[in-house]
Amino acid sequence: MRYELYYWPGLPGRGEFVRLALAEAGADWVDIGNDGDAGGVDAVEKGLEDDDRPSFAPPYLRAGTVTVGQVAAILQFLGPRLGLVAKDEADALWTHQLQLTIADLVAESHDVHHPVGIGAYYEDQKAEARRRAKEFREERIPKFLGYFERVLAKNPHGPQHLVGARLSYADLSLFQVVDGLRYAFPKTMQALAPKIPHVLALAEAVAARPNIKAYLDSERRLPYDESGIFRHYPELED
Amino acid sequence: MRYELYYWPGLPGRGEFVRLALAEAGADWVDIGNDGDAGGVDAVEKGLEDDDRPSFAPPYLRAGTVTVGQVAAILQFLGPRLGLVAKDEADALWTHQLQLTIADLVAESHDVHHPVGIGAYYEDQKAEARRRAKEFREERIPKFLGYFERVLAKNPHGPQHLVGARLSYADLSLFQVVDGLRYAFPKTMQALAPKIPHVLALAEAVAARPNIKAYLDSERRLPYDESGIFRHYPELED
Repeated sequence: MRYELYYWPGLPGRGEFVRLALAEAGADWVDIGNDGDAGGVDAVEKGLEDDDRPSFAPPYLRAGTVTVGQVAAILQFLGPRLGLVAKDEADALWTHQLQLTIADLVAESHDVHHPVGIGAYYEDQKAEARRRAKEFREERIPKFLGYFERVLAKNPHGPQHLVGARLSYADLSLFQVVDGLRYAFPKTMQALAPKIPHVLALAEAVAARPNIKAYLDSERRLPYDESGIFRHYPELED
Repeated sequence: MRYELYYWPGLPGRGEFVRLALAEAGADWVDIGNDGDAGGVDAVEKGLEDDDRPSFAPPYLRAGTVTVGQVAAILQFLGPRLGLVAKDEADALWTHQLQLTIADLVAESHDVHHPVGIGAYYEDQKAEARRRAKEFREERIPKFLGYFERVLAKNPHGPQHLVGARLSYADLSLFQVVDGLRYAFPKTMQALAPKIPHVLALAEAVAARPNIKAYLDSERRLPYDESGIFRHYPELED
């Protein structure tokens, strides 16, 4: 099966949570938005317009006759196909619930630099972003990552994984959000480190997995910059 | 099967999406947060603390030995059990994708009155809320509801339902978000009405279903007020 990922070109963004799952599994996949020969951004936009079951926004994934949008739904679809989720129904549901909570953190990570206008420029809402960033750094990041620390500590199979004794797509996504937050809020994350040892150990273990390491070292892994979800504006950490 | 809904008392909030599914199906359910005899808010908070698989926030649902949090995951769990989702796998996935997009709209509906501080008072961010509300009214509501209008128009089985020819939990949730937005932004919704006839017809049809009508007329249906997701602040619509 060849998987086609449709996402905006040039940034990790929400597409990255899907890329990591495909990379870990060694899947055959095309990054349509970043591959002009495969259609590039025009193909991404065309799908949003023309699909019988259009997604509200990228990313969306095509796999044979199936098209699915929304990161958490894409990962739920890919999970069993790529061996990245437990077969047990309750475990799979719990994995999905955790993924949805990661999605909430990702949304807040974006909104911190766009508090009063999703479609407006950051430069036009810097004062408001500063105010929201203070709460995000002091309340929201500790609350979310403290939650995942607690989930890891409560896992009866040990704190190496969020669910059970094996890697799941939620582990990969937790790595990505930690990685992105470290880029965006390095001082905050450093100060928080002693309180989230399991979360950081998981992120480190994911980064060291052979397929993930090869992916992170490859050209397919795009750098963060100030056009995506995770942005480093030093003034938001002062 | 007796279902237990754990959610904050006194408001429709995110719990309402679950209540509507349980009500439509005529399920046996307890609204724990609003039922002091069943444990009330203390029981809701206790579960967040003590569960082996704790939710990040309410609502969460208990069904026998299963506990599941996150509205979209709860509805995905309930869907097949309550006959509120198609058996076909692709249709069920599409229903879930739509539910996740409704969840995004719900989150933005909340953030409009809390743009710079999720934990701060509205009164302390009125100017910022006004700015965000302008975009929400002029760009985001039309974009989201225009999307669902398009999804309904594209349904090969007709625009009566979001997916296929039968009611799903996503239809119930679309009713709720339309109902909430009408409360919060009545003028905006009235002006938008000519552009979203299928969405409004669906909302009307849902409200007229016997079980839903009986629920909406009952004491279990809680009124909107200025403590929930959908709040009517007239100054945000000027």
